[in-house]
Amino acid sequence: MRARIGVNGLDHNHVFEIVDRLVKAGAVAAAHIQEGGFLEAFEGWQTESRPMTFDEMLADDSIDIVVTAAIPNRRADIALAAIAAGKHVVTDKPGLTTMAQLDAIRAAVAGMPGRPWTVLFTERYENRAIAEAVRLARSGAVGRIVHVIGAGPHTMWAKRRPDWFWDPEATGGILVDIGSHQVDQFLTITAMTAADVEVVAAAVGNVASPDHPAMQDIGSMTLAAPGVVSDHRLDYLTAKGLGTWGDCRLTIVGVDGTIEARANVDIAGAEGAEHLFVVDAEGTRRVDIGDVVVEWGEQLLADLADGGERLMTQQHAIDVTDVCLRAQGAAGPWGLAGSTS
Amino acid sequence: MRARIGVNGLDHNHVFEIVDRLVKAGAVAAAHIQEGGFLEAFEGWQTESRPMTFDEMLADDSIDIVVTAAIPNRRADIALAAIAAGKHVVTDKPGLTTMAQLDAIRAAVAGMPGRPWTVLFTERYENRAIAEAVRLARSGAVGRIVHVIGAGPHTMWAKRRPDWFWDPEATGGILVDIGSHQVDQFLTITAMTAADVEVVAAAVGNVASPDHPAMQDIGSMTLAAPGVVSDHRLDYLTAKGLGTWGDCRLTIVGVDGTIEARANVDIAGAEGAEHLFVVDAEGTRRVDIGDVVVEWGEQLLADLADGGERLMTQQHAIDVTDVCLRAQGAAGPWGLAGSTS
Repeated sequence: MRARIGVNGLDHNHVFEIVDRLVKAGAVAAAHIQEGGFLEAFEGWQTESRPMTFDEMLADDSIDIVVTAAIPNRRADIALAAIAAGKHVVTDKPGLTTMAQLDAIRAAVAGMPGRPWTVLFTERYENRAIAEAVRLARSGAVGRIVHVIGAGPHTMWAKRRPDWFWDPEATGGILVDIGSHQVDQFLTITAMTAADVEVVAAAVGNVASPDHPAMQDIGSMTLAAPGVVSDHRLDYLTAKGLGTWGDCRLTIVGVDGTIEARANVDIAGAEGAEHLFVVDAEGTRRVDIGDVVVEWGEQLLADLADGGERLMTQQHAIDVTDVCLRAQGAAGPWGLAGSTS
Repeated sequence: MRARIGVNGLDHNHVFEIVDRLVKAGAVAAAHIQEGGFLEAFEGWQTESRPMTFDEMLADDSIDIVVTAAIPNRRADIALAAIAAGKHVVTDKPGLTTMAQLDAIRAAVAGMPGRPWTVLFTERYENRAIAEAVRLARSGAVGRIVHVIGAGPHTMWAKRRPDWFWDPEATGGILVDIGSHQVDQFLTITAMTAADVEVVAAAVGNVASPDHPAMQDIGSMTLAAPGVVSDHRLDYLTAKGLGTWGDCRLTIVGVDGTIEARANVDIAGAEGAEHLFVVDAEGTRRVDIGDVVVEWGEQLLADLADGGERLMTQQHAIDVTDVCLRAQGAAGPWGLAGSTS
C-alpha cells in the first residue's frame, strides 16, 4: 500500500520540497486544505490532490501522513491533532515555536512506537555536502570532534515575504527558525542530546529591517557540550549578488583534521552547490559527493512502515527543538547598547 | 639618518619577519643580545649586527628601536626598560601577558608623544588579503559592519616547539597569544576601542596535548560592541596535510554584503596565499590584492621620524592587548564538564 499524504500548511515553499521527495519515494499526494500562500501553486502542481478540511483529513483513515509547512507557530497544533488521529507528522522546520508547544508534543508522543513527529531539517537532509560532512565526522575521519562552526546567512527577499515572516512570534525567532538546521547538525555530528548541551551565549538583533522593528534579521549562539563547543551565526543579510538563497557553511574541527562544507555555493570558486573539503594528515582535498543519495523520503516511508527510526529518532527531533528554544529564550540584544541599528 | 635596531628577544621566529621588513624599509640591524632559541640563525643572517648586552643596548644612544620576540611574558619588562631609555619598541604579538604588565606599559607611555610601544599584529600587517579586507570594510564597501568572524587555526608542530610554548604562563594563553591578531582586526574594522567591547563568552581547552596538561590548544571568544558581535576561534589542531602553518579566515558581515579573506590558503582551490572575496549587490568575486603593498616597515620608520601614528595608534596597541587579557581572564573550560579530553 502506498502511503497517502494530507497537507495542512501551504505557507512556506518548503512544502514543495517535502511533498516532492515523499512522492518520488512512493507516497501519494492525496489531499490538502484550501488555504495558505502557496495554495494556488500547490493545486497547479499536485493536480490529483483532493481539497479537504483538516477535520476531514483527520477523520480519513486512508491518510497516513500529515505534512505541514504552516506558519511556524501553528505547526504544533496541526501536529498534535494529527498525532491524536493516528497520523505520522512531517513538519517543516521549525516544528514549533514555544516550550509549551514542545511539552505538548513530548506528552503526545510519550510511549508511542516509532517516530510520530518528524521535523525535516532540510539543510542536512537535502544537501549532500552537509550530509556527507556529518557522516564523515561521525565515522571518525578527523578524530574526536572538538569544535563545530555553522553559518546560515540567508537572503531577505523582503518584497516576496509574507507578513508572518517579520514576526518572531510567528516564526519562533531566528535561532529557532533557521537556527534549527545548525543545531540538528551539531547534535547529529556529536551524537549529543539536549541534556548534554548548555547555551553559553546567544544574541538576536535587527540591523537592516527598519520597516519591521520586531524582525530578527541577525543572530548567533554558542553552545557547549562535553568536550565540544559549537558556534553558529545566522542572518538575512545575504546580498543579491550571491546568486542563490544563502551561503550556508559547516566547519567541523576534529583533533586529527577539519571538514568544511559549503552547502550552497563556492563563492568565486567551483560551479554549482554542495562543496565538501577535508584537511587531514594526508592532504587537502575536495570530496566528491556525487554518489551521496538524498534518501530521506525513502527512509521516512520505511520508518512509517515498520516503526523504525532510520531518518532520525523521535528524541532527536525533540532535542533539536529544545536546544533552539533555550537559545532563543536566552538571547540578548545584538551587540551592546548604543547600537546605531 | 637610518634608524638603528637592537634586538632583545630571539625566542620566536617572528623576529626575522620583523627585522627583515624594518631593514628593507631602511633601518639597520645594529645589535642583538646573545641568547634565545634563534640566536645562531640570526647571527648567520644579520652578520653585521653586533652582539651586546641589553644594558649596553639601552645605554647606546645610536640604537633607536628595540625589537623583541622574547618569550611573551618577558616582553613587557624589555619594553619598559627600552621605553625608559628613550627607545621605540617593536614587539612581536602578544606584547605582554598580564594586566599588571599592561598597566605598567600604560603608565610608561602616558603623556609621551607618538607611539613608543608598537605591537606587530602580523596576520593583518603581513597579509595583504586581511589588510585589504579590513580596508574595504572601513571604506563602507559592504555597509555598516554588524558581525566579524575570525578563525585562526595553527599547526602544532610539537617536535619543534620550545618548552615555553606549552606554558600559558609564558605565552599568556591562546586567546592572548594568537587571539591578539583577531582582536586587532575586529577593533580596526569597527574603529572601536577597548572601552566599547564586552567579552560575552570565552573558553580555552586542551583537547590534543596530553603530554602538556597546561597547554591551551583550543580556544574561542565572543565579543560584543555597539551594534556588532565578533566571534573568534583558535586552535593548534591544523593537520599537516594543509601544507602551510594555518588556515586563518576573516569574514566581515555588513548590512550590504560580505567580505571573506582566506589568509594562508584556499583549500583545494586557487594556488598560493592571500585570497579575498566580496559578495555584494553587484555579484560575487575574487578581489586581486596584487597591488596591495606591505608597508608597515616604512610606516613605522616614518612614525618614528615625526612622532606620527600611521601604522597604529598607541591606544590601539593597548586596546587590543586589554581585550585579549580580559577574554583570557574570563575564559572557562572547553565544553562542559565530562569532557573526554
